[in-house]
Amino acid sequence: MTDIYEIIGQIAAILTTSSFAPQVYKTWREKSSKGISLAMYVMIFVGVAFWLVYGLHIKSTPIITANIATEIMVIMMLYFKFKYRE
Amino acid sequence: MTDIYEIIGQIAAILTTSSFAPQVYKTWREKSSKGISLAMYVMIFVGVAFWLVYGLHIKSTPIITANIATEIMVIMMLYFKFKYRE
Repeated sequence: MTDIYEIIGQIAAILTTSSFAPQVYKTWREKSSKGISLAMYVMIFVGVAFWLVYGLHIKSTPIITANIATEIMVIMMLYFKFKYRE
Repeated sequence: MTDIYEIIGQIAAILTTSSFAPQVYKTWREKSSKGISLAMYVMIFVGVAFWLVYGLHIKSTPIITANIATEIMVIMMLYFKFKYRE
């Protein structure tokens, strides 16, 4: 079950998911979403929902956990995009 | 082979991968990377490389194709982050 590739998948999941954290923090700190693409985050929001369905089907823990966490961050970015629009 | 979940995975891959395109275009057009988090894109760059290894191992076509395309966009964003820094 827990082989090297599952660990690699988990590291991948942790990195790509937590990557949104510095952007969320930066946008919140600067109170500006000027440089942020709304289209990007809308597409990620929908795409991540589809990844979640796929991950549940192939029973891939890294895909499931990564996409739940990513979706939370993406919702925060979408909120900031409107809250801090100029 | 090509069941509904493979199609869902492909749609997920297309959405999350192509989501970087509007951000690449916006940053290029505005010639500014001020609002873009360097930490985010460095983490995505490394994370996507790990996803690629994982995807190759589990032989998931959506994961492999998505991450190759994403990596190209992420490299463009990293280039813009330095080219259009203020």
